[in-house]
Amino acid sequence: MIAVPAHRPAPSADAPHGAIRARYRRVRAETEALAAALSPEDQTIQSMDDASPTKWHRAHTSWFFETFLLVPHLEGYTTFDPAFRMVFNSYYEQVGPYHPRPQRGVLSRPGAAEVGAYRAHVDAGMERLLDVCDDRVAELVLIGTHHEQQHQELILTDIKHALSLSPLCPVYAAAAPEVAAAPLAPPGWWALEGGIHRVGFAPSGAPLEFAFDNEGPAHDALIRPCAIADRPVSNGEFRAFIDDGGYRRSELWLSEGWHLAREQGWEAPGYWRKGEDGEWRVYTLHGERTVRDDEPVCHVSYFEAAAYAQWAGKRLPTEFEWEVCARRFGAAEADDEVQRPHPRPLKPGIRQEVWEWTQSAYAPYPGFRAAEGALGEYNGKFMVNQQVLRGRSCATPFGHARPTYRNFFPASARWQFAGFRLAEDR
Amino acid sequence: MIAVPAHRPAPSADAPHGAIRARYRRVRAETEALAAALSPEDQTIQSMDDASPTKWHRAHTSWFFETFLLVPHLEGYTTFDPAFRMVFNSYYEQVGPYHPRPQRGVLSRPGAAEVGAYRAHVDAGMERLLDVCDDRVAELVLIGTHHEQQHQELILTDIKHALSLSPLCPVYAAAAPEVAAAPLAPPGWWALEGGIHRVGFAPSGAPLEFAFDNEGPAHDALIRPCAIADRPVSNGEFRAFIDDGGYRRSELWLSEGWHLAREQGWEAPGYWRKGEDGEWRVYTLHGERTVRDDEPVCHVSYFEAAAYAQWAGKRLPTEFEWEVCARRFGAAEADDEVQRPHPRPLKPGIRQEVWEWTQSAYAPYPGFRAAEGALGEYNGKFMVNQQVLRGRSCATPFGHARPTYRNFFPASARWQFAGFRLAEDR
Amino acid sequence: MIAVPAHRPAPSADAPHGAIRARYRRVRAETEALAAALSPEDQTIQSMDDASPTKWHRAHTSWFFETFLLVPHLEGYTTFDPAFRMVFNSYYEQVGPYHPRPQRGVLSRPGAAEVGAYRAHVDAGMERLLDVCDDRVAELVLIGTHHEQQHQELILTDIKHALSLSPLCPVYAAAAPEVAAAPLAPPGWWALEGGIHRVGFAPSGAPLEFAFDNEGPAHDALIRPCAIADRPVSNGEFRAFIDDGGYRRSELWLSEGWHLAREQGWEAPGYWRKGEDGEWRVYTLHGERTVRDDEPVCHVSYFEAAAYAQWAGKRLPTEFEWEVCARRFGAAEADDEVQRPHPRPLKPGIRQEVWEWTQSAYAPYPGFRAAEGALGEYNGKFMVNQQVLRGRSCATPFGHARPTYRNFFPASARWQFAGFRLAEDR
Amino acid sequence: MIAVPAHRPAPSADAPHGAIRARYRRVRAETEALAAALSPEDQTIQSMDDASPTKWHRAHTSWFFETFLLVPHLEGYTTFDPAFRMVFNSYYEQVGPYHPRPQRGVLSRPGAAEVGAYRAHVDAGMERLLDVCDDRVAELVLIGTHHEQQHQELILTDIKHALSLSPLCPVYAAAAPEVAAAPLAPPGWWALEGGIHRVGFAPSGAPLEFAFDNEGPAHDALIRPCAIADRPVSNGEFRAFIDDGGYRRSELWLSEGWHLAREQGWEAPGYWRKGEDGEWRVYTLHGERTVRDDEPVCHVSYFEAAAYAQWAGKRLPTEFEWEVCARRFGAAEADDEVQRPHPRPLKPGIRQEVWEWTQSAYAPYPGFRAAEGALGEYNGKFMVNQQVLRGRSCATPFGHARPTYRNFFPASARWQFAGFRLAEDR
Repeated sequence: MIAVPAHRPAPSADAPHGAIRARYRRVRAETEALAAALSPEDQTIQSMDDASPTKWHRAHTSWFFETFLLVPHLEGYTTFDPAFRMVFNSYYEQVGPYHPRPQRGVLSRPGAAEVGAYRAHVDAGMERLLDVCDDRVAELVLIGTHHEQQHQELILTDIKHALSLSPLCPVYAAAAPEVAAAPLAPPGWWALEGGIHRVGFAPSGAPLEFAFDNEGPAHDALIRPCAIADRPVSNGEFRAFIDDGGYRRSELWLSEGWHLAREQGWEAPGYWRKGEDGEWRVYTLHGERTVRDDEPVCHVSYFEAAAYAQWAGKRLPTEFEWEVCARRFGAAEADDEVQRPHPRPLKPGIRQEVWEWTQSAYAPYPGFRAAEGALGEYNGKFMVNQQVLRGRSCATPFGHARPTYRNFFPASARWQFAGFRLAEDR
Repeated sequence: MIAVPAHRPAPSADAPHGAIRARYRRVRAETEALAAALSPEDQTIQSMDDASPTKWHRAHTSWFFETFLLVPHLEGYTTFDPAFRMVFNSYYEQVGPYHPRPQRGVLSRPGAAEVGAYRAHVDAGMERLLDVCDDRVAELVLIGTHHEQQHQELILTDIKHALSLSPLCPVYAAAAPEVAAAPLAPPGWWALEGGIHRVGFAPSGAPLEFAFDNEGPAHDALIRPCAIADRPVSNGEFRAFIDDGGYRRSELWLSEGWHLAREQGWEAPGYWRKGEDGEWRVYTLHGERTVRDDEPVCHVSYFEAAAYAQWAGKRLPTEFEWEVCARRFGAAEADDEVQRPHPRPLKPGIRQEVWEWTQSAYAPYPGFRAAEGALGEYNGKFMVNQQVLRGRSCATPFGHARPTYRNFFPASARWQFAGFRLAEDR
Repeated sequence: MIAVPAHRPAPSADAPHGAIRARYRRVRAETEALAAALSPEDQTIQSMDDASPTKWHRAHTSWFFETFLLVPHLEGYTTFDPAFRMVFNSYYEQVGPYHPRPQRGVLSRPGAAEVGAYRAHVDAGMERLLDVCDDRVAELVLIGTHHEQQHQELILTDIKHALSLSPLCPVYAAAAPEVAAAPLAPPGWWALEGGIHRVGFAPSGAPLEFAFDNEGPAHDALIRPCAIADRPVSNGEFRAFIDDGGYRRSELWLSEGWHLAREQGWEAPGYWRKGEDGEWRVYTLHGERTVRDDEPVCHVSYFEAAAYAQWAGKRLPTEFEWEVCARRFGAAEADDEVQRPHPRPLKPGIRQEVWEWTQSAYAPYPGFRAAEGALGEYNGKFMVNQQVLRGRSCATPFGHARPTYRNFFPASARWQFAGFRLAEDR
Repeated sequence: MIAVPAHRPAPSADAPHGAIRARYRRVRAETEALAAALSPEDQTIQSMDDASPTKWHRAHTSWFFETFLLVPHLEGYTTFDPAFRMVFNSYYEQVGPYHPRPQRGVLSRPGAAEVGAYRAHVDAGMERLLDVCDDRVAELVLIGTHHEQQHQELILTDIKHALSLSPLCPVYAAAAPEVAAAPLAPPGWWALEGGIHRVGFAPSGAPLEFAFDNEGPAHDALIRPCAIADRPVSNGEFRAFIDDGGYRRSELWLSEGWHLAREQGWEAPGYWRKGEDGEWRVYTLHGERTVRDDEPVCHVSYFEAAAYAQWAGKRLPTEFEWEVCARRFGAAEADDEVQRPHPRPLKPGIRQEVWEWTQSAYAPYPGFRAAEGALGEYNGKFMVNQQVLRGRSCATPFGHARPTYRNFFPASARWQFAGFRLAEDR
């Protein structure tokens, strides 16, 4: 068990780049807090090609700062270990060769403690850098903190997948006391009138304001008259789909999804298992428990979301319909930056606890150009064969999501905290 | 060698459903003419999971008429062989189980001649059906002829792939005399002003008018000011990309394409091979010959098209930009219905001889609903993880393509006659 | 349908190499007779990596004569097509590169008729060669005829596998009238005393005498006192194993076999299928019929044979125990050379109709040295990870098998006509 | 880093089952000493399906004692964790289901420390059991100690493979000072006369005497006159094979080996790598160093051993030739039981430091019957598609090997410490 690192005090108000520095400290400490529940062995394992070990996430996020900030911008900086340049590069071709992703689980070294030392080394360098760097470089630091927050969510999704494969049914963290499930009223519908709407990220100049490159440029979108559900589909609603033979009715499914579902034996969302009493049980980071009907359905692929929508006689929203609703009806206001426990405590009937599949394929916005250099590989090179997800999940750190945020995964992905809401034409 | 079936005379003007009947006869004869160049052995082989044997195409297109027209709508019709219902079903889940696609090449029976007898049996039934059926049923016959034309193109793409794998370098058909290559001027640019444009298929009521369900409903699209090249990228232009290291520069590529290209050793478009003299040679249905600089580049994946556009500092057009240009500038006027030889004779500098990758993912148009029943599986269930191609190719039958036509293939596909043209923001 | 070639008359008694020439003519004609029942399409298909198309077998056996006899030994011989040197090489590395085995099914050309022309071309050359060649070369011709007989059996095993995959349940040849099954008495036991026995092939100098290199040198083997069953295990006996849960009792199985059986869902011998009435049915070259209890069990892997023996409290014989019995008790006298129909008519209770798995791994005999040059690759390079089978099957040509014959296949192989008999220590 | 457990004192001479108890204590302590050099992270990783994590080996060997000794034979014993019955079962079908081998690397829990507690719990039980059990049960304890010694060697082979995949080139243990390489004289030859020799294990009744079931029954073997090299082939000798194109000459190889070698790009023994200066370097448990010509070649597959022998004009010995030599010439006298460091210090020119491939396939001896119950699965069910290795390696614990010992691995295995010696017919 790793000792939880003491939270470094907030920098004084007049320190250089004080707000970014404070955010840097906070995010870095949050990563370590997430890992603190995991033993060195837990932090080492990799359960599938798409997932990574916890200590790899801890090291890679530090590599990001070392590679894009410290090495090019901090005079006199000494790398912690030159071999890490290759070992903890995720996929930046322009940085050089990298250790193959499916083999991250074979790296026992550096161990969890040494990764901690690497993080401390990078943190020390970053403090020095922030003392001296200009605003343009500080902007890159801000990117790095948001990058690290993405990996915070992956730490949880990836360890959940790995632990779920053990017959010992291990627990990541003790559960909060359960609140009794309350009957869930049918969703309400938010109406959107047709016409031109403005979408995408447009900077306002507020401090710490941030968006990834793929959220812009802001531009006009033509939206058809429609209505969007005011909450995601719930477990209870999804069980009606299962009980109606939803997983065995080919006419509801996209062809690729149908074949995948049969090949992999899908009969329910990911992590669901039918108990001996016929009740659905679900594996969570708090261990296995009964499926709650009032929670949003989670760990479904795009294929399952689309099949459900077909079954319900509705459709999934486009990413722009979603975004306009989010701004107008407050479905996904930007989080404040206050640190709160991970994963978020579940509130019954909560409107927003899962990433939501949209029917939009992940594509560049009009006028999008990737950044020059290796950082340009961040988002742009994945713009094919992925679907956009909007919102945020119970595993998303506070201060990370916003209405223009575009998450993306292949339609087959189930290990993310992903659900969906319905839409209909009007 | 199969005898080319005599072309049945055009029906008299006052025969019931005369125009559809004439089209039916013509299309069916064209299919047999395409297959006539192939021996029974040629018609049997399957070279990859995505491709099908020629005689399977010949039988499946007949199965389509038998299953959707003759069995439900022609009283007293006797099926040719009840087992064919399963054997020649391609993917219609609602019709019942089907022989797995990757195993079509193991079906030596029925042989090519028996497939010919099956076709004649179906043709006889169809003539009787057209004598008695109503307009709604005749409309389904029209669908069937367009379905068969799609398979005519696949007969050529699939046999080209299969024959290309033989070390004997076999020839499908003798080549027409070559015209000398002429220097190709740089493309001109068609300008599109921004704003709302109408796209998609809207019926005019003309006789024999046709579109697939995925081409509608017609709707408004918001287009940004841009310009579109007036011809596809040529082999000569693509060679400059190759010579500039295009296949070895990761920064130009989508991530998935980069990994696929390296895994499969792509260094040039499909069917290209560097001769011992260093010249690029290309395998065609007429045998191997030297690559002509004045022809459109062909047999490239979406990944190669996108990488080239990145290299050229341009982008691919969206499918709507393409469609508006096609209507306005005549890039892809609807063909007449006159039968001409297959594949089309190549005209130097021709504007339109390849399907063209667009940057648009294949998705339903607003308001799209698939048809009821098995025919609803035709297009809708493939609307994920595919890119739209527009135009037509040298292998597309006359009378088949039109400006609203949406072809679609996975981004990795190379065995289709696919190229691309460039676009740029204005 | 290919016309059955007229059987060339036997050469006159005083023709050079008259006996070998007669054998050559007979064997070549038998190959064509086997293929005559198959359409060009049938002859083209390949159903798995281990199997080959019929016309490939017809061509490869001709390639053998062309490559090892005509090209090196017949002055003035012109090859039929130089490309065939590569296309029809099976695995002789020293001859040069070869077309990959799993891709033999994509070779539509040369077609079945052209392969016939190739065979005629080679036959004409071989007649000329036999007019002039010396005895050493004639010896190679004899090897070629035995090589071709091996492929005659493979023509049947491979087309059986391919046709069995068709939902149309095609028939290779009409069945002879069935004789009623008679109750089968338990097997008798042949006793072998312990001690040194002579095994392996020792030439006697008889005309046309032949053995493959792997059957020698003759040598002493030490045999333990034991008894060998006087007939193979029957279908009826094997059904008792199935009914006793033999396919679900891990303790009876070799570990590798157990996992393979579960992975592939084995529940009975190859080609068996439980009918809707609960009766076992079996696919044969004559179509599907009911399993006969009085026939030897066939199409079992070594793993199934070994599991049955374990279940029965016995063991499989070693190849030397088998050979000594064969010589002493006549289990497998050498065939005469008279041509008879293929496959052999099934006689109820017949002692020998299946290849028989032995417990001996395929290994070189003491003092074995492979021949120099490419022909040395024939047998020796396969001496690992294979089990020896002895005897002959209903698909083995007459005049091919003998008591010292060593057939060999991987323990997992099921598409051969393979069964087994039991042994026990005494 | 795990604390090395204190070596428990030897039991007093008159304790019940004193000798076995002493051996139990020693072997258990040796396992922990081997693991002590490895961090919890190191002990968790699994680099391929055939290898297992260190802590899995530590737990599985304890499971063996718990399952086969404590649960059935110690009244009042409480299992440490009932779930371990499944988690740490390796392959004993009769014990029940087991966690799939390729997924052992995903088990982060129990952690290395908890496995230590499991071991202590089992040890305490075993001491109590030895106080009260009869001789038959004590015999099973002896089996368990030899079983654990097999896993001691696997701990080293498996961690070597895993660490070798890291670009950081990690070290298991510091190397002893190197002794300078001395020129190696050609091997001498031990002559064996032909005739009947006795082989296999025959009990003498000596205390602690032990052999696995697959080493018996003792029986007569017929041996041909031959000679066996008095030492294994050296690195220097093997380099001559490499330099002579041995990895590129198909005629030297078994067919399966040839294809595997090309598929996997073998150009030298496992763990060899050509440095930038053209010198061969080798990864060892002490880190990478230059290949020493005077050491036995190691980490070669059976295929490489057989190809070398073919190249050298010799052959590999049979397992019986090897065994007779071992007894007569002292090539592999039984070790004493004294504990010495792991891995064994390398002595220049040492005769015996690698397991040696023989040409014998792994098969049951005449009269072999596996034990009743789950322990019968230990050896017998693997008797197909494996080759016998004889001798012992630098990773084999003292007191484990003997002249009749039969190690076995698939012909393709390279991660074991395996070399070979030559033989020739006389």
